[in-house]
This record gives sequence, structure tokens and C-alpha cells, in this order.
Amino acid sequence: MNGWRQRLVKSLYQSRSTPESRYFQLATQSADGRLHNRTVVCRGLDDERDALWLITDTRSQKVSDILNNPQAAVCWYIAKTREQYRFSVTCEVFTTSAHATLCQQYWQLLSEPAKTQFLWGEPGLERLNAAESLVAEMPIEATPPAHFCVLRLDIHDVDYLSLRGNPQIREHYDLVGSKWRLNEIIP
Amino acid sequence: MNGWRQRLVKSLYQSRSTPESRYFQLATQSADGRLHNRTVVCRGLDDERDALWLITDTRSQKVSDILNNPQAAVCWYIAKTREQYRFSVTCEVFTTSAHATLCQQYWQLLSEPAKTQFLWGEPGLERLNAAESLVAEMPIEATPPAHFCVLRLDIHDVDYLSLRGNPQIREHYDLVGSKWRLNEIIP
Repeated sequence: MNGWRQRLVKSLYQSRSTPESRYFQLATQSADGRLHNRTVVCRGLDDERDALWLITDTRSQKVSDILNNPQAAVCWYIAKTREQYRFSVTCEVFTTSAHATLCQQYWQLLSEPAKTQFLWGEPGLERLNAAESLVAEMPIEATPPAHFCVLRLDIHDVDYLSLRGNPQIREHYDLVGSKWRLNEIIP
Repeated sequence: MNGWRQRLVKSLYQSRSTPESRYFQLATQSADGRLHNRTVVCRGLDDERDALWLITDTRSQKVSDILNNPQAAVCWYIAKTREQYRFSVTCEVFTTSAHATLCQQYWQLLSEPAKTQFLWGEPGLERLNAAESLVAEMPIEATPPAHFCVLRLDIHDVDYLSLRGNPQIREHYDLVGSKWRLNEIIP
């Protein structure tokens, strides 16, 4: 396992009791050039490759952003251990039509409330009945709705920072071919 | 006070005992087109305008990014209240040479450890003595070093999300002239 990945696995283990360790911020760029930044829930660190997995709605801003520009930036700050991972990533969208089995696998892992969120209508559209509770537009099925999708974020550059104690530690990792190269840098 | 600002002031008050409420993520774009995302400490919500203040080092990546493209994206997730504020911002850099008094004001408010961080050398450069503690290259002075600077982030678009309870609430605010317009949208 490479150096940053060892650190991340340890950070996640040490912070496993805190909800804060389950999400990070993902920045993308839309076709008009604007940047967008939001919190997303991590659905897994890939076992086979240096990649993170997410789920989302194909109608969300981040999917149209990624289809426009697959290069994005992750900031994962783990409050409990005071460590920050900054990843440059390339994103890929896996839809239900092209990757039914994969989408099904991620869908099955969701709680009922998490599934229901996909049935409230198109994210970002005006909400007409804002005073009322959100009501699912269709029942929850065993298979995901057509607009459910899975995202893979392949990591190709890492900036790691530990704020604990002195010395602070900051490390930069980049790929030379398929090997990770480490440089210790000034925080 | 506009609607999102009322919400933010309340969120910050309710979460004031948590360090997590003092920082947010800022995404910027560098001249080569890459996106960068990092955690920054909020140094204040402006009293007079809808803007956030930060401090940083003119030699940091974010300053060169902002000089290249002043449009950036903030994601401020407040864990305690489960609320997220996403801001589209325009950034401005205030340097010690052009804005000595302003920089001096922010410098004075820093703790000694925070001041020392500005004296470790150029951020991002290779660290040659990584096994040793970081040592300040110069003494802390009453006036900030020349590479200290202040950033103002003017907010012109807001996406607010509250995950508490059902209904979830998501609001979009944009500026029509100088007035904030609210739309309730589907989360």
C-alpha cells in the first residue's frame, strides 16, 4: 500500500466513530466556467485501485459538471485526527443503463431514507409545496430508479497535511508512471 | 438581514462550541485549469457586506489561483446543526504593501503559533529537514511579514441545505441587483 493510502486507512480507522469521517467536499466546474463545491458521502475506497466511490442522481449539478469536465478536486478533512487529504481526481459516471449490476450493488447498500431521497423529484428544481413534507413520487423498488448513478473518482495527485503537534507534516504525492512519488513539503 | 445570512448567523451561534464551525472548504482554479480544494479558517463574516474574510500567505497556491481566476466556491458544512452553505464567491487579495493597516489588524488577532506558521518558509516548497521540527526563519514581529495577506470573499450566490428532519430544506439565493431572491428547491 502506498504512503498516503496507509495514512488514509489509519485516519479513517481512528475516526470511525465520528460521522465527520464519512464525508468530504468535492469541487467541480460547470460548462459556464463556474466552480461548485459540496459535501458528499464516501461510499468506499476501492480495494483494487486508488479511487473513491460515491452515489448520486444523474440530474444533479455535479453529474453535468463531471460530464463537462471530469477533472475535480476533493478535500477530506478528518476533524478527529486533524488531518487533511486533498486529492486531484478524474471522475467517471456509471449509469443504470450501462452498468446495471454495479448500480444495483450500491443501491442495495442504502438505507430506506437514503433511497427515498432519490424519489423526491429533480434536484435543483423549484419546490412547489415547500410547506409540506417531501413525499416520494414513486415507491422504493428493489432496483434503482433510472436516474440513480455511481461515481468513481480516480486519484492522481495527493496533498496530505497533519496539523497535530510540531512538526506539522505536509506531503505531496504524484504518480510517476504507476508509482507514487513522495515529497515532503513546507506546510 | 437577508434570509441566508440570518440562517448562517444562527448556525454559527448554535455550533460555537465546536471547532468544526470555524472552517470551511474553498475551491479555486489554477492557470493550468486544475481545480484545488482546501480547508481554510474563517476570520469573520463582514458586518457591512455579504463577504467572508480569510488570511493566508501570498506564496500559497490559493493566492496564485485567485489572481488567475477570482471566481471560487465555498462549501461550509456545519456538522452540529447538519446544515450546508454553498457560496459562489469573488475573491480579492489585500497585500501588506497596498493595505498595511488592514493586514496589521488581522495579524494582531493571531495567536503566536498561528503567526509562526508564516515564518516556516515558502509553502509548497520541498522540506529539506523533514525529520526535525519546523523552525521559524525569522522572529515574530508586531507587523506582519511581507508575504502575509488578507482575502475577502464576496458572496453572490448561495445554496443552503438543512438535513435535519423531514422536510429537508434546500434554498437557493441569488442577487437581483442588490436584492437577494429566494427560491425553495428540491434537495
